[in-house]
Amino acid sequence: MSIPYKEQLLTIEKVFRDPVHDYIHVQHQVILDLINAKEFQRLRRIKQLGTTSFTFHGGEHSRFGHSLGVYEITRRICDLFRRNYSIEDDPDNGWDDSERLVALCAALLHDVGHGPYSHTFEGIFNTNHEEFTMMIITSPETEVFQILNQVEAGFPEKVASVIRKDYPNPQVVQMISSQIDADRMDYLLRDAYFTGTEYGTFDLTRILRVIRPYKEGITFSTNGMHAVEDYIVSRYQMYMQIYFHPVSRAMEVILDHLLKRGTFLYQEDPHYYEGHSRLLIPFFENAYTLEDYLKLDDGVLNTYFTVWADDKDQILSDLAARFLNRRPFKSARFQPGEDDTLITEMTQLIERVGFNPTFYTAVNTSYDLPYDFYRPDQKHHRTQIELIEKDGSLIELSKASDLVAALAGQTHGDERFFFPKEMIQNDRTNLFSDEFTEFSRYIHNGALRRP
Amino acid sequence: MSIPYKEQLLTIEKVFRDPVHDYIHVQHQVILDLINAKEFQRLRRIKQLGTTSFTFHGGEHSRFGHSLGVYEITRRICDLFRRNYSIEDDPDNGWDDSERLVALCAALLHDVGHGPYSHTFEGIFNTNHEEFTMMIITSPETEVFQILNQVEAGFPEKVASVIRKDYPNPQVVQMISSQIDADRMDYLLRDAYFTGTEYGTFDLTRILRVIRPYKEGITFSTNGMHAVEDYIVSRYQMYMQIYFHPVSRAMEVILDHLLKRGTFLYQEDPHYYEGHSRLLIPFFENAYTLEDYLKLDDGVLNTYFTVWADDKDQILSDLAARFLNRRPFKSARFQPGEDDTLITEMTQLIERVGFNPTFYTAVNTSYDLPYDFYRPDQKHHRTQIELIEKDGSLIELSKASDLVAALAGQTHGDERFFFPKEMIQNDRTNLFSDEFTEFSRYIHNGALRRP
Amino acid sequence: MSIPYKEQLLTIEKVFRDPVHDYIHVQHQVILDLINAKEFQRLRRIKQLGTTSFTFHGGEHSRFGHSLGVYEITRRICDLFRRNYSIEDDPDNGWDDSERLVALCAALLHDVGHGPYSHTFEGIFNTNHEEFTMMIITSPETEVFQILNQVEAGFPEKVASVIRKDYPNPQVVQMISSQIDADRMDYLLRDAYFTGTEYGTFDLTRILRVIRPYKEGITFSTNGMHAVEDYIVSRYQMYMQIYFHPVSRAMEVILDHLLKRGTFLYQEDPHYYEGHSRLLIPFFENAYTLEDYLKLDDGVLNTYFTVWADDKDQILSDLAARFLNRRPFKSARFQPGEDDTLITEMTQLIERVGFNPTFYTAVNTSYDLPYDFYRPDQKHHRTQIELIEKDGSLIELSKASDLVAALAGQTHGDERFFFPKEMIQNDRTNLFSDEFTEFSRYIHNGALRRP
Amino acid sequence: MSIPYKEQLLTIEKVFRDPVHDYIHVQHQVILDLINAKEFQRLRRIKQLGTTSFTFHGGEHSRFGHSLGVYEITRRICDLFRRNYSIEDDPDNGWDDSERLVALCAALLHDVGHGPYSHTFEGIFNTNHEEFTMMIITSPETEVFQILNQVEAGFPEKVASVIRKDYPNPQVVQMISSQIDADRMDYLLRDAYFTGTEYGTFDLTRILRVIRPYKEGITFSTNGMHAVEDYIVSRYQMYMQIYFHPVSRAMEVILDHLLKRGTFLYQEDPHYYEGHSRLLIPFFENAYTLEDYLKLDDGVLNTYFTVWADDKDQILSDLAARFLNRRPFKSARFQPGEDDTLITEMTQLIERVGFNPTFYTAVNTSYDLPYDFYRPDQKHHRTQIELIEKDGSLIELSKASDLVAALAGQTHGDERFFFPKEMIQNDRTNLFSDEFTEFSRYIHNGALRRP
Repeated sequence: MSIPYKEQLLTIEKVFRDPVHDYIHVQHQVILDLINAKEFQRLRRIKQLGTTSFTFHGGEHSRFGHSLGVYEITRRICDLFRRNYSIEDDPDNGWDDSERLVALCAALLHDVGHGPYSHTFEGIFNTNHEEFTMMIITSPETEVFQILNQVEAGFPEKVASVIRKDYPNPQVVQMISSQIDADRMDYLLRDAYFTGTEYGTFDLTRILRVIRPYKEGITFSTNGMHAVEDYIVSRYQMYMQIYFHPVSRAMEVILDHLLKRGTFLYQEDPHYYEGHSRLLIPFFENAYTLEDYLKLDDGVLNTYFTVWADDKDQILSDLAARFLNRRPFKSARFQPGEDDTLITEMTQLIERVGFNPTFYTAVNTSYDLPYDFYRPDQKHHRTQIELIEKDGSLIELSKASDLVAALAGQTHGDERFFFPKEMIQNDRTNLFSDEFTEFSRYIHNGALRRP
Repeated sequence: MSIPYKEQLLTIEKVFRDPVHDYIHVQHQVILDLINAKEFQRLRRIKQLGTTSFTFHGGEHSRFGHSLGVYEITRRICDLFRRNYSIEDDPDNGWDDSERLVALCAALLHDVGHGPYSHTFEGIFNTNHEEFTMMIITSPETEVFQILNQVEAGFPEKVASVIRKDYPNPQVVQMISSQIDADRMDYLLRDAYFTGTEYGTFDLTRILRVIRPYKEGITFSTNGMHAVEDYIVSRYQMYMQIYFHPVSRAMEVILDHLLKRGTFLYQEDPHYYEGHSRLLIPFFENAYTLEDYLKLDDGVLNTYFTVWADDKDQILSDLAARFLNRRPFKSARFQPGEDDTLITEMTQLIERVGFNPTFYTAVNTSYDLPYDFYRPDQKHHRTQIELIEKDGSLIELSKASDLVAALAGQTHGDERFFFPKEMIQNDRTNLFSDEFTEFSRYIHNGALRRP
Repeated sequence: MSIPYKEQLLTIEKVFRDPVHDYIHVQHQVILDLINAKEFQRLRRIKQLGTTSFTFHGGEHSRFGHSLGVYEITRRICDLFRRNYSIEDDPDNGWDDSERLVALCAALLHDVGHGPYSHTFEGIFNTNHEEFTMMIITSPETEVFQILNQVEAGFPEKVASVIRKDYPNPQVVQMISSQIDADRMDYLLRDAYFTGTEYGTFDLTRILRVIRPYKEGITFSTNGMHAVEDYIVSRYQMYMQIYFHPVSRAMEVILDHLLKRGTFLYQEDPHYYEGHSRLLIPFFENAYTLEDYLKLDDGVLNTYFTVWADDKDQILSDLAARFLNRRPFKSARFQPGEDDTLITEMTQLIERVGFNPTFYTAVNTSYDLPYDFYRPDQKHHRTQIELIEKDGSLIELSKASDLVAALAGQTHGDERFFFPKEMIQNDRTNLFSDEFTEFSRYIHNGALRRP
Repeated sequence: MSIPYKEQLLTIEKVFRDPVHDYIHVQHQVILDLINAKEFQRLRRIKQLGTTSFTFHGGEHSRFGHSLGVYEITRRICDLFRRNYSIEDDPDNGWDDSERLVALCAALLHDVGHGPYSHTFEGIFNTNHEEFTMMIITSPETEVFQILNQVEAGFPEKVASVIRKDYPNPQVVQMISSQIDADRMDYLLRDAYFTGTEYGTFDLTRILRVIRPYKEGITFSTNGMHAVEDYIVSRYQMYMQIYFHPVSRAMEVILDHLLKRGTFLYQEDPHYYEGHSRLLIPFFENAYTLEDYLKLDDGVLNTYFTVWADDKDQILSDLAARFLNRRPFKSARFQPGEDDTLITEMTQLIERVGFNPTFYTAVNTSYDLPYDFYRPDQKHHRTQIELIEKDGSLIELSKASDLVAALAGQTHGDERFFFPKEMIQNDRTNLFSDEFTEFSRYIHNGALRRP
């Protein structure tokens, strides 16, 4: 066939049934091929929410569905822009539909570099999922690269630049990453659906009615202000109620300590694992390739943890069992800057009972900035959300919404001290019953306090 | 505390947010302890629908949530029975609420013996998840046993007998296993929710209004006939449209062949895997313990497949890659009893192209009997669904419903021949292009036919 | 402006928020004008489900929303057909998009002739909503006609002929009226949504994926068979569980008798109502115009009933109060052809207690034929539902589906005898307590029987 | 039977299918009798949202369903309180379940005095639905009173005092009326459901988990803070996006002017309506009884409007037609306190074109105070929402939530000037084309401005 690959449309649209968007519609051969690429299929084996499913058991969905969802929202925005705001009708502010394919590919692939339990894993092994996304897209050995490169030479790099936010067309960039983009819109709805909570629900259909392109990116009609405002609030609620849940964070703390201990043992003795845990070795050695990385997924880590749970090292086996069998640490809030000696004293009690504090305590901080306007003085400033009036004038969102103004520029979240549940048991017959009693006196209404 | 363990109620009810039932309500300490048992937590790592998520990407939920759901429906039925149909009010047909705890435990644990990709795994390794369920419940070394045994001596065996259907109280047995039980009701709703399809949706609330105990088990008021009928139809639709989807079965075929190849290589050479794949060795050797079994989960198999994908054995590595990267076989329907020579001839073509037919073809049959009435002449007869009139007389469901009568006693499903997708490529430049063309002539409108 | 009216598209699509279809999208000025026509706005004052909201209190929605819904489904089908099955690509079987406007207008207007409580009203006053639909569309004095006629001369008649089913293009006709058309699809979903029941829920999105035009009308891909089958079952369930509910029918019986009594009193004495009830007078006199008809709505009847409830005629005032205050008759099933003397004897008891049987008893039969295949020997045969294979061959639905075969050609429903609730009171102190006791002996398990 | 009426429980619970709460559960004979009372059944004929269904066509539901919903939420709260926070366990702060019946009755009846289009109607005829609620409950001639009085002497007055907020038990009062009560919770969810919008959706189930009684009323656990916060935001969104929609308010303006004109004509000439419109006469004469009031409903007004649409008075007939046929006025925002001369000048233009400004213009202000804390200095202060810590200490909601703090004490809404749509037509051939052009120059970006 002589139709160029980039223009090959499927004779019959291919659909994927999706609980959030009903159907994901695939029209380009390129997109279908990318979905079938092994680097993309791998996302089926990586949970979207990591340890959150330990708290909300429905949240077991993978990054695969989310990536399809971001693609689908982007596709709908492109359709809308082409029909209503084409560059042919409005050369200054309109949408150039020849940008569609690069936008769709970037949407689909924006998370392709994620690994297992990314947040924790990256902290330990110094990896970075965004860099891996770039590598997967631009490395000649990947299937993803080969598909993109078949579109036209340099196309992989174009897709990468959209994700990196240095693509010249700001409409394409902001569709995929801004404070209200296809990525965030999909994950809020999807995570709400699977966890069975309502907080992430906002009116996507309405937002897709009021979204508009303009010269410098993406904007929203003023009459859609409340829908955008509601999205910001939903986002805030999801962070407060789902993403920052103390139990999920407690499991993350255990995971972190477990991987640290596993690494430590290897570094003490490179023969420690005797042939098993082999897919992690390159990371213990800090000498991994892209190929090594692509072999990892949630199941690989869990498999090693299953073996580790029988290990002779007591800390390793205990932490592995706590993780697999969901035995979260307990925690208490404290104010940043609060009297440090509280934690020091509590840690001493924990140590006295026999726990190694390095592996059995942690301070974990979870903060989110629900929205911010542009701050030219800051290094990593955010693209602010703009509303557009009938006459084309722009208003920054927090100027139009008291609610958003209340959230803008302020981080929300909390700081917590994590410790073994055993510390607050009230078993009087236990040898350490005195320590436990003393420890408990440091906690009141769920927060630390001077006893 | 002097309250016996079995009567310990949580001072504040503990809830689990669930997308299907809103909340799962836990009131007994026993139930909470069982949920926390490591054999039960393990269900988080085993997908409810196995290879179905390769077709319906939302269907990635685990057996953990389903087990909670079966528990919750059972709990609601107990509540209803206690309030409206207590044995104190109706000594002949009423519900004895002292059966509640055994019913709840059986509901929660009915699937606890499931392993990874059970259907396929059991076929290869001769295991049986129902036997493992019994073992987990009755083996002194499990946490589950220890919790149950603390309730009272002999309690584990009681719970097991409910699941085995030889518990003396038929109301308890039928709540958990009959043609309309808490198990089926939960999985239809849950699988529909996560896959994002409507077919499994029936009116649970209405069914929980018309369900009633009677001397010989569970029955439904005649005025609830249509709700029960609708449930039977939903069940049928889920089998036809979701569970029997040809692509999921194609992935199951690959999995089956892959595990077979893996076993074969080990049996040829016990040192084949050199220390890795160790958790599968007891199964290759057909000498496994319960402990071995409990270490398996979906992730363990996938991890080994990841290693196998680099194996020197071409069949093993190719099948592993097909499974991980979702490269399903294609298939065509045929009528049972149809001309066998068709498949023989097609298989010869497949072999001629270079595929080993043992590992690259399969016949797979998926049939379901949506409903059946009692057939005393059959060995494994089913408990039929009875409707109850105001005057206490019973009517068997298919006598009251034309729809159910149409489905009763008839299996539905299809028989398919599976083969590599390569066989129907239309690449004229390929060396085997003649074989491919000939092969294609055996398939018309998706079914086999004499060319 | 020189764009012809029929081609005037709204510069910005106008939408109506709809709970069933999310948004109704209006793109033609013609459609927007029709919606704003007073004959169409009048549908807001006529309930879709008549007396059903006395049973399912949520079902208070009007014919206005339903008409928009039928329009929207038709619009989506046109979009799909244009994109995938255009006549330009397939001159034999494809869709000619120049038919779009006539299809949309017919969809929107198909019910515009409905009046208050149509079913009952038409029985009493010998009106016919389908004839009124024709008149509204083709009478020069209506706003609807004037809008349609502005499209082009003869256009109103074209729209009428689609609804009358004699329009030459069978694709357009079957979109609006066949056994699976936009009308039925909308009302099942809408009535299920508002009444809060699940039964009417089927997978519209999937059906809109498998629907296809062909030379002789509308067909469905064979791989969509189960979705179509599920729709037939949903339709059957809605009739059995919602539309034929005995309490709604009991209220309909009261309404019928009330209107009959009201007419009787007027016919006895044309001055009876002294200036009020004036909008009904033309109907009492059987001499109404279209204009008279268009002034009626549910509220008009209820308003007169409110006045009648204070009337000096005891039957009129009693029936009016029973209707307004929801005091349904009771009823019992009987088999058609069953011993007539049962009803005769019961009626005598009713009369003996003091009720006029003409106004206080009724036999009501509600039967539906969920699906039928083509029967050339029958006068009013139905267009059967056809499935289409890849090679273009057709299969009639009931040949492919056991479920549909079970429902095909068989009416479902029941026959009931209605009587005042007072007849089954068990107040021993009542003067007629003996009659009541005797009466009750005729009813067993909700059905008539020889005592 | 010797069971006192107040304790008569239905042997089998009676349920009403409800789309918002699934089922409404009725357990007391008293409640069932109240629902069947004619004053309550009348609520079926009064729309919950008045003119809002002109904008959101799904919002046609009546006050009947809402009243059942408020009852159901109250019932669930009582169940929860009885189980978890009984006064027997906590004499200081617990719930006394003997208050259940009075709470349920008050919940069910809190809106029973509503009439057609209450807001507008009350403005014109000086009626007050709250006073009518009191009268219906306490007047010996109503069915409602008779049922309540049968419970025990003085019971009607007790129910009335709950609604009037002077009942001694603050828990009962706050369940029914406070800033987060069963009334508000039901209408937000219900109005969102029927209009098909998401904004009113909050997590009722979660709120029903964290609600708690205490000595001085109702409070919420601090760990439910975000659920309560989300409710406040949902409430705000519903006001901003649904209840204050300019088109619904424009229809209200027309209704107001229409009723004013109707009254004016009667007051000019008491024979004006010649026997029709009779149910409104007592209100024209400002001499109505409770009985007169109970005869009114939406349909009565619409019926008279239908007659009025043919009236000889041009203003009456024109406004009636605009209302029935949905021809809303247009409007523009202005800042309170803004230059009054703008409106004066615009009004002069309107008059010049031939419209009587009294009946064709209006200023309408819609403001809501989403939440407020207690302000002892204000006359009508609100009960603030309190959160309760584990140790029993209370925190006022806006102290714990930045979002609520942003909304607290600040009214939100807008002020609009309404005028005939004709004023902004751009028909150059019209006689008044100059006036129209000039008029349009006063409006920019939807707001008034000095041209």
